[in-house]
Amino acid sequence: MDGELSERTRVRRHPERGEYSRDAIYAILDEALVCHVGFTVQGEPVVLPTVHARVADALYLHGAAASAMLGAAGGSPVCVTATLLDGLVLARSVYNHSMNYRSAVVFGVAQEVTDEQEKRTALDALVEHVVAGRSADARGPSTAELRSTRVLRVPITEASAKARTGPVKDGPEDLGLDVWAGVVPLRLAAETPEPDPELREGIPTPGYLRRDRRFSHTSQDQEPRGEHR
Amino acid sequence: MDGELSERTRVRRHPERGEYSRDAIYAILDEALVCHVGFTVQGEPVVLPTVHARVADALYLHGAAASAMLGAAGGSPVCVTATLLDGLVLARSVYNHSMNYRSAVVFGVAQEVTDEQEKRTALDALVEHVVAGRSADARGPSTAELRSTRVLRVPITEASAKARTGPVKDGPEDLGLDVWAGVVPLRLAAETPEPDPELREGIPTPGYLRRDRRFSHTSQDQEPRGEHR
Repeated sequence: MDGELSERTRVRRHPERGEYSRDAIYAILDEALVCHVGFTVQGEPVVLPTVHARVADALYLHGAAASAMLGAAGGSPVCVTATLLDGLVLARSVYNHSMNYRSAVVFGVAQEVTDEQEKRTALDALVEHVVAGRSADARGPSTAELRSTRVLRVPITEASAKARTGPVKDGPEDLGLDVWAGVVPLRLAAETPEPDPELREGIPTPGYLRRDRRFSHTSQDQEPRGEHR
Repeated sequence: MDGELSERTRVRRHPERGEYSRDAIYAILDEALVCHVGFTVQGEPVVLPTVHARVADALYLHGAAASAMLGAAGGSPVCVTATLLDGLVLARSVYNHSMNYRSAVVFGVAQEVTDEQEKRTALDALVEHVVAGRSADARGPSTAELRSTRVLRVPITEASAKARTGPVKDGPEDLGLDVWAGVVPLRLAAETPEPDPELREGIPTPGYLRRDRRFSHTSQDQEPRGEHR
């Protein structure tokens, strides 16, 4: 990062797609809803999906106190990878098919968070990561809930990002082929929120669900009634 | 799988979310556009996103012949994980926030594919995985392109799936809180295809882009003109 480029974070294939600035890496980590955490168990790799949140120069992961993943990852080197899919790149040749994407890879040693205040901050950040505005609304964790939750901190010391953007790249010899070529844009879309069947009457859909920075809410173009402000 | 449950594929947290049938696992692998591949480099985990394709009981991965990932993964144990995000589960309590998702985890030893015919089959499958119908349309790989592509086969011998579905689960003591609760459905949406600026005139958007089993094409409800049949 910013001059701390290590051998394993150097992007070797398509080096023009590599990004090493903190801003570029953090933007991907912040936008991706989930990450994939790699750790080793008896020398072999295990990869599991989970929610993450970034606070300054650290990532937080969490789970049940008894979580096998967190148990194996705590105190050990982990690799946390977040990927955003932006489009299918359909070239005239099979060979030049690709995807538009942004991904960030973070290496670090996961450390268990034992300080209660840091745990609370991390859990708030995890909720805020998913829906900005939610942590001030939902009931915060009780002491018992906090005790049965394990939180890991991964300092972001070694990281890189990689992205492909833009149109198809076919060789000039293929441009005349009778094959459609182009990009199919992809996005993670949030649809209309479905209230809990047990939701008390008179509680409107919160405004932060419509304003969330992460999604385009295609099905929510109409102004909802009685929205929180 | 189907009675071959190993210790590391047993779902420990929320065992009610575990699935071990081949059908359930394969459905997730087939629907997920990309996977995250975990391998080890000098004993430490590395996780990178890539496209995969399943053919019978094997997964195929591919990349440039010089790819560091494929070089490190070939002949070694890998973990291939595919995750589909289905919804945000917003509980009244921070503690019960969750996601609806489906994920599949495959363990295996990646083997380099050297047989030319199997390589071609794998590359066709990789294109078909992304857009069904595409491999019969695009120009197939030349011998030189085949030579500069590395393909790995991961036999699916040990695997499991995990899924959360359904509504919020709050404790009875929280049901009376003045907090909105519910599920925000998520889906990966494909938008209107953007033809390559260099596309020859008179080549319509192919019909298989509209019929693809994987996407709901929100912006393509109108019948396109001159569609391939």
